[in-house]
Amino acid sequence: MGVFELTNRVIYFKARPKGMPDESNFEIREENLPVLNEGDVLIRSLYLSVDPYMRGRMSDAKSYAEPYKVGEPFKGGIVGKIIESKNDRFQEGQYVEGILNWAEYNVTDGKGVRKINPEWGPVATALHVLGMPGLTGYFGLMYIGQPKEGETVVVSGASGAVGTVVGQIAKLKGCRVVGIAGGDDKCAFLTDELGFDAAINYKTTENLRQALKEVCPNGVDVYFDNVGGAVSDAVMSRINFQSRTIICGQISQYNLEKPELGPRVAGQLLTTSSLMKGFIVSDYAEHNKEAIIQLSQWVREGKIQYRENVVEGFENTVEAFLGLFRGDNIGKQLVKVAEE
Amino acid sequence: MGVFELTNRVIYFKARPKGMPDESNFEIREENLPVLNEGDVLIRSLYLSVDPYMRGRMSDAKSYAEPYKVGEPFKGGIVGKIIESKNDRFQEGQYVEGILNWAEYNVTDGKGVRKINPEWGPVATALHVLGMPGLTGYFGLMYIGQPKEGETVVVSGASGAVGTVVGQIAKLKGCRVVGIAGGDDKCAFLTDELGFDAAINYKTTENLRQALKEVCPNGVDVYFDNVGGAVSDAVMSRINFQSRTIICGQISQYNLEKPELGPRVAGQLLTTSSLMKGFIVSDYAEHNKEAIIQLSQWVREGKIQYRENVVEGFENTVEAFLGLFRGDNIGKQLVKVAEE
Repeated sequence: MGVFELTNRVIYFKARPKGMPDESNFEIREENLPVLNEGDVLIRSLYLSVDPYMRGRMSDAKSYAEPYKVGEPFKGGIVGKIIESKNDRFQEGQYVEGILNWAEYNVTDGKGVRKINPEWGPVATALHVLGMPGLTGYFGLMYIGQPKEGETVVVSGASGAVGTVVGQIAKLKGCRVVGIAGGDDKCAFLTDELGFDAAINYKTTENLRQALKEVCPNGVDVYFDNVGGAVSDAVMSRINFQSRTIICGQISQYNLEKPELGPRVAGQLLTTSSLMKGFIVSDYAEHNKEAIIQLSQWVREGKIQYRENVVEGFENTVEAFLGLFRGDNIGKQLVKVAEE
Repeated sequence: MGVFELTNRVIYFKARPKGMPDESNFEIREENLPVLNEGDVLIRSLYLSVDPYMRGRMSDAKSYAEPYKVGEPFKGGIVGKIIESKNDRFQEGQYVEGILNWAEYNVTDGKGVRKINPEWGPVATALHVLGMPGLTGYFGLMYIGQPKEGETVVVSGASGAVGTVVGQIAKLKGCRVVGIAGGDDKCAFLTDELGFDAAINYKTTENLRQALKEVCPNGVDVYFDNVGGAVSDAVMSRINFQSRTIICGQISQYNLEKPELGPRVAGQLLTTSSLMKGFIVSDYAEHNKEAIIQLSQWVREGKIQYRENVVEGFENTVEAFLGLFRGDNIGKQLVKVAEE
């Protein structure tokens, strides 16, 4: 295939948002694909991942991840297929996953691109249960939360890509699992399909503390937090002695134009001898293999289920991303760019 | 000695405070000592300890420690001498330490009372550097903070019984150590006598964040927090990737009539993969012996120094306690009740 025949659509990061991002922060451009140099591969995008953490990288505030640079292509997790390879590590037809430009095609030297074994599951799972969100849930829960049989685990953002994995692992570990999500359909999904013991729709629950008290009669031992804000305030009021709170995301705070004040947590951590810890999946990179093997086994055994929310068409990527902050998705939000 | 000859002064907990405690929360009563039963000992108080944590126990909010009961004697750490013993574990003349009634004399079955080895240091040190505050500093810093050579350690409430121990251990571990305290005399004590690299008087520093930036050019790796509130807000704005914040006390918050709002810390913990952990000294009780041996060695070698702030006279105990919240003390606040 001659690469010059291909034009490529690429989504550029046009301007940093103030508060909620919108379409004006992005721009789709058509451009020719560059020539492959020795060592390069050409990857056709099949699925793009949209994830809440990307909102953080759109700001230039100091964080663990480098901020996205305005004027450059926007980047995210992509599952694709090798179309052409001048790199010994890759062969035409292989499925791969990596952080690549939001584009229909990428030409890359393959650094940071991993091959997907399609026997482990559908290739799109490399973007969720067998990818970054799955590893995130596994590491945060197992290494920080360290749930013990009989303990109560609360998960916020429970119906998302990370939350669904966390809750199901906690069930496998013999815990009572309570999910907090924004919608009755999401709550029903958690309890009826994923086996959560209870779920709370924070959008329609007037007194969240009281609701938590009812479904967590023995308090909260592990809190896996994807959202922050008022939901977390309520959960923190119920933590037990030597509880562990895992800070995985704070989606309720990402689009605030200025930081919100809230109840101070230090006093609560003090009087309960409790831990609160933030993390990023790469903190545990040395355990990636162990985690993927375990997760893929659970998925094959049907012990961990997942749901994908798939939007079709590259041109709908930005809209799918913005939908994350409206809580549109149940399970993993994906954009399908091309047929496998 | 016939115990009936002795009248005893005892400080009772009269009423729970709202906000700042005062003399009206306490009452001194004169009473006869009870008869010693088989197994009992009579202890003459030599030194009473007044500690910030006691404020927490005066509230009936849920905490790791049982609240003090109104109408009962107030309790605290006491170093005393065995005057009479009907208990095989103790002999007349021995020095002991334990949580006992705030009283000139205690009759007790000896449960929770430990013998002091006077060869390890002056007996009053069993109430600070070789007692609860010393262990608290040691465990919090070593087990949660885990300071590494070259890291920057910030301590708030730095000139108190815990803070002075923490800062000096951190220096022994090769760290850059910055203390935050409320007074120029306290700051001079930290830098000139205890070898802290820098000290900040938070009461006279207008821009605490800027001041911290100057004395922590490489950010903050470990924050040992005794105070909470605005001081901690400033320190948290400077934490490094994978920093550890130890919540030991929150003295700035204890006397507030209603909880204060503050900047949410979860986002900061998330973007720096950082840890925040509360604790109580008893969490590490299995390591008490190791810690006391190490601390007493450092004290004998002059590597850990201490200062005592001694008020004379049992009748001044409450006043000494209240002084903690005005920041009267440099080093350990003690009340001397009788000569050794």
